Amino acid sequence: MSNPIERLTNSVIGGDSKKAALIVSETNLYYLTAFPSTDGALLLTSEQAYYLLDFRYTEAARAKAQNVEVVEFTSLNETYKTLLKKHGITEVYMEYAALPYGHAKRFEQLSEECGAKAILNTTLDDAIRKQRIVKSDEEVKRICDAQAITDATFEHILPYIKEGVTEREIALEIEFFMRKEGADGNAFNPIVVTGANGSQCHGIPGNTQIKKGDLITMDTGAMLAGYHSDMTRTVALGYVNDEQRAIYNTVLKAQLAVIDGARPGMRCCDVDKIARDIIETPYPNTFGHGLGHGVGFEIHEWPRFNKTDETICEPGMVITDEPGIYIPGKCGVRIEDMLLITDDGCRSLTHSPKELIIL
Amino acid sequence: MSNPIERLTNSVIGGDSKKAALIVSETNLYYLTAFPSTDGALLLTSEQAYYLLDFRYTEAARAKAQNVEVVEFTSLNETYKTLLKKHGITEVYMEYAALPYGHAKRFEQLSEECGAKAILNTTLDDAIRKQRIVKSDEEVKRICDAQAITDATFEHILPYIKEGVTEREIALEIEFFMRKEGADGNAFNPIVVTGANGSQCHGIPGNTQIKKGDLITMDTGAMLAGYHSDMTRTVALGYVNDEQRAIYNTVLKAQLAVIDGARPGMRCCDVDKIARDIIETPYPNTFGHGLGHGVGFEIHEWPRFNKTDETICEPGMVITDEPGIYIPGKCGVRIEDMLLITDDGCRSLTHSPKELIIL
Repeated sequence: MSNPIERLTNSVIGGDSKKAALIVSETNLYYLTAFPSTDGALLLTSEQAYYLLDFRYTEAARAKAQNVEVVEFTSLNETYKTLLKKHGITEVYMEYAALPYGHAKRFEQLSEECGAKAILNTTLDDAIRKQRIVKSDEEVKRICDAQAITDATFEHILPYIKEGVTEREIALEIEFFMRKEGADGNAFNPIVVTGANGSQCHGIPGNTQIKKGDLITMDTGAMLAGYHSDMTRTVALGYVNDEQRAIYNTVLKAQLAVIDGARPGMRCCDVDKIARDIIETPYPNTFGHGLGHGVGFEIHEWPRFNKTDETICEPGMVITDEPGIYIPGKCGVRIEDMLLITDDGCRSLTHSPKELIIL
Repeated sequence: MSNPIERLTNSVIGGDSKKAALIVSETNLYYLTAFPSTDGALLLTSEQAYYLLDFRYTEAARAKAQNVEVVEFTSLNETYKTLLKKHGITEVYMEYAALPYGHAKRFEQLSEECGAKAILNTTLDDAIRKQRIVKSDEEVKRICDAQAITDATFEHILPYIKEGVTEREIALEIEFFMRKEGADGNAFNPIVVTGANGSQCHGIPGNTQIKKGDLITMDTGAMLAGYHSDMTRTVALGYVNDEQRAIYNTVLKAQLAVIDGARPGMRCCDVDKIARDIIETPYPNTFGHGLGHGVGFEIHEWPRFNKTDETICEPGMVITDEPGIYIPGKCGVRIEDMLLITDDGCRSLTHSPKELIIL
């Protein structure tokens, strides 16, 4: 498979020497060049890919950025215009969802000054999305490498969960352990919620202490070489009551049913429905979010697995399978694996145990 | 001083019941409501401020968001339109620099469907910038609280710097220590560069080991309750040669001269010039970045202290004073404090020592 810049150039510009594409969002810059920047710009032409950076970044970029010519600018505006003129560009595709409005107006104006038209629609976004939604074997390997750290972290954290320990202390230990194990960062700020906080499915770990009889939900992931993992486990301390156990078992049943049922050709909304049908009857209105989302170069990427996403599942997609039940004021349970859609079904990339663990 | 939402509403909308302002960028949402969100929207009207959030965030937002009515949506588009109609809004100010182009087009269209015009210029950005550029006493206190952690971290890290320790190990220890000391996060990924890497002023800590005779530059900061600190120190291991010492002393002289010279009424570019004049003669073309930047709710905010920023310094601004000299292939030195512009000059908010430390 050719490199990401070559693939994107082929799909958006083809061999048209008058066309260019401009990328300025940090995530897309990182994905395409392997060198992230908040102040840089990548200009793709049919002949050459230019990475425009200021003095602070060029030395490091020349060592690390892939498949680009690094160009140092003192004025991004002037360097951009010089390159458009050099190549006689007449149309420049721009990002849409991630491009700040101010940048759009700025580059639209600069392009006009060179006789080029800024194409401000979703063409470039769609091409990037299409390129990223199906993972290459190399990308799957990188996601698995990140997940291996996450699995090791789960094993490490279990003996750390004791009466009196706070959500925040657990979250910090998770963060530190992942970094020591080689992660470049957390895939996102870990969610650790206990007891009644468990109903806040995106809760921020606070000073609440774990107590016996609590369910503790931990949603964590590692980031490694730009690729993310995402896993949730809910465990109990001391004991569970019948209601907690019933909720846990319902979520687990829903989560496993998705692994059993998801396969290429299904619409994402129908994959979501597998889990939703199992939860909604016994626990109506408690599963307020979608089943999951694509994961890879970003922690949340396309497709979305919710009630409305009609994207068709394809082999090579990596998605999360994370049903949950949330009872405000009482508790919450969520269980999450990453699934790789295969030729005839799917397989979980997550190896941590899912049976209810009572510590 | 009234709360941030009230101040912004007053400055942008005044008492005009037909006007509204829409904020969707995470940073501005966090600044205005004390509750960050990547998927929420804040609608300010002359009568009420509404924070539109989905199911995942409303419970936590009701507990933590300040000075807003939290509104749970299932469709953000529909809830937005309902509120515009309810208040009979005819003009909606939108963000400019931080608003994604896709969102701008989306909310422009939704507004039109309600007979309201989206104002897509810098009015709202300018008002937020004006509000944020001069810090309140409470904000200065928060910045100092974050800096106290950074100062403690510098003291902690010195004995950790030894021959054979890698840049990455030092960076991790800095991160962990800050978090254990109570930081909500790092203000940014710590920069730790040693020896020849020191010329990469924004270098990423790698596996290079510290060796005797190296200068080690550490640019770090803590984030606490949304406010950031920013500090750089360069230290040496074992010994320094005459050239390294001369470079260090030149940077220090420039850094101190700024503290001596910066005062209200000066243009930012003239503050930059104080340091630049001292460095440029003995070391031409080695100080490739601006002297500094505003810091507070974001790690980089307005104004910029560089060769071209003509913003006038005002009491209450908090800025960084961070001159540097970078010799590619050889070494780099940067020394950075945060300065508070006062009524008659400025004072440093940074307490770590600046004399050359040879470990």
